[in-house]
Amino acid sequence: MTKNKDSLTNISELGEFALIDKITENFDSKHKSTVKGIGDDAAVIDNGDNQNCTIITKDIFSENVHFDITYVPLKHLGYKAVIANLSDIFAMNGTPTHIFAGIAVSSRYSVEAVEEIYSGIKLACDKYNIDLAGGDTTSSKSGLFISITAIGNAKKENVVYRDGAKENDIICVSGDLGAAYAGLLILEREKQVFKANPEMQPKLDQYNYVLERQLKPEAGANIIKILNELNIKPSAMIDISDGLTSEIKHICKNSNCGASIYEEKIPISNKTIEVAREFQIDPVTFALNGGEDFELLFTINQKDYEKIKEVKEISVIGHIDDKSEGEKLIATSGNAIELIAQGWDSFKIEKQ
Amino acid sequence: MTKNKDSLTNISELGEFALIDKITENFDSKHKSTVKGIGDDAAVIDNGDNQNCTIITKDIFSENVHFDITYVPLKHLGYKAVIANLSDIFAMNGTPTHIFAGIAVSSRYSVEAVEEIYSGIKLACDKYNIDLAGGDTTSSKSGLFISITAIGNAKKENVVYRDGAKENDIICVSGDLGAAYAGLLILEREKQVFKANPEMQPKLDQYNYVLERQLKPEAGANIIKILNELNIKPSAMIDISDGLTSEIKHICKNSNCGASIYEEKIPISNKTIEVAREFQIDPVTFALNGGEDFELLFTINQKDYEKIKEVKEISVIGHIDDKSEGEKLIATSGNAIELIAQGWDSFKIEKQ
Repeated sequence: MTKNKDSLTNISELGEFALIDKITENFDSKHKSTVKGIGDDAAVIDNGDNQNCTIITKDIFSENVHFDITYVPLKHLGYKAVIANLSDIFAMNGTPTHIFAGIAVSSRYSVEAVEEIYSGIKLACDKYNIDLAGGDTTSSKSGLFISITAIGNAKKENVVYRDGAKENDIICVSGDLGAAYAGLLILEREKQVFKANPEMQPKLDQYNYVLERQLKPEAGANIIKILNELNIKPSAMIDISDGLTSEIKHICKNSNCGASIYEEKIPISNKTIEVAREFQIDPVTFALNGGEDFELLFTINQKDYEKIKEVKEISVIGHIDDKSEGEKLIATSGNAIELIAQGWDSFKIEKQ
Repeated sequence: MTKNKDSLTNISELGEFALIDKITENFDSKHKSTVKGIGDDAAVIDNGDNQNCTIITKDIFSENVHFDITYVPLKHLGYKAVIANLSDIFAMNGTPTHIFAGIAVSSRYSVEAVEEIYSGIKLACDKYNIDLAGGDTTSSKSGLFISITAIGNAKKENVVYRDGAKENDIICVSGDLGAAYAGLLILEREKQVFKANPEMQPKLDQYNYVLERQLKPEAGANIIKILNELNIKPSAMIDISDGLTSEIKHICKNSNCGASIYEEKIPISNKTIEVAREFQIDPVTFALNGGEDFELLFTINQKDYEKIKEVKEISVIGHIDDKSEGEKLIATSGNAIELIAQGWDSFKIEKQ
């Protein structure tokens, strides 16, 4: 590096997505087997088989950035790290089959602690029928880092990307949104209470639903199964890891379109609404900007509406527009509000 | 965890390989596509294609454990992280095609620093004809972590595992050993000199070879090509990342055999011998216990000896014995010495 220190750029000024664009812009694709490289939930590689392709994704989780072990049990942490990656495979309409687990731990962690993390990894593998096929276990000078790579497959013609949404397509979401963020707020609050008075025993029973959504999320295997049974191939799909706004903007950017989301249609659990009220925050904010729901956001052709409208696990929340319309939230009042991504960004968080 | 703190086990007591055995012992294989899971240089997955299979490996590199950025240029770091993974794919007799790069960086790193790392990753991708197909870029509270996943392929019948060595097979190694460790010693010494007197300008020209082997190693693409051209399929193969002793012991454990290595046959560069003399260490120790050479250690049937004996890139260093013989170094004096692994272990290092 020839620049002097004053002219260097803080990563937090750029944010995660702009950084990724910048560092990967010079990479070209050399293999025609690379059907999809950077820029979707997962990569798609044509492995030479006539029918099937391989789907691959990878995530890193850093201590005190993505998780806080003062309130996240290590077993849950291992489980969740796997789920976050399986979710990316499902978001391509694929079936995950294998994971690789990389863990770097500081000397603060015992053998038993690492075993706890792996017991969570095993639980996720057993539940989702996944083989742990390899990885790396090494030491870190400070903190715990978990990097999971998930591998899956799909028939070539069934893979769903972010870039296939068309004007008038219907926007759907699975499950309910914002609960994981509600759970995080509760855990953060109880941590502060505990710090102030370690004798205080938290009463958390009433928050079970949102805590479970934060600590032990599930990935969209059942949604992929339902779509398959209904013979619906979404035109575009993404998993909700950074909040609804951030994800709808990814679909619009990649599909070169606009979108309207109806506030009243966004599925939010009563349990999430109760927490939002406690914190005096609009629950819709949880859904739009909270992260880690690991629900699936997808678009379908209008002709498939009849098939999907009675499915209780899926909500229709809006429609795809022309690009000139931008991305809008249609408020319950009828006003259209431009959607601005305030989703979770690990580099922005650090700046605070 | 129900144990109290006093009864917890330090990871450094166990070491990396025993830890991996312990945490993975309960995982079962659910997919018949998992040809090889944990326990080799890389995993092998049958992707349904009649001829080919997919080979996958993953490594994590932690700051101040695997590298020290006070003397490792970031571009070299990116390059080396890729090479270490490609080396694992070559060690299965496979051809690497894709990598996924995960990076966690603290706020101490600038955008320009991350770009430097990626420029090294790109250089390795271009040189070895690899597509960067995805990854994750996120923040860490402290330090830099790089996790690379490499994907490759091979014809099913061509994959070479660690477990195929047979009694009387010939043990071969590519290139020369110990140079990367010699380079590390020089860099560590210069760091101490610089700390004591920052005005001191290091004179490193005479160490170029060993420094390059430490800072910008290469993976065994050319060796795989040579073996292929000679129509030789090794009976067992592994890459040398933790020192010759550690790797020969892996082959013997997996192949259920013993081995004799002849001290005088171990290829060591004159440049490495010079550094060993400076430090008053036996150069054979560098080869046996130093790491990161990324050369290939493999065994071949005696019938292939004639084909290989004149290949300058490959040295014959010993033979496979019955298991009861154990793993021995036959010293130049003729004495047989039991090989004891003192190879690099990130958890043991930390303890020091």
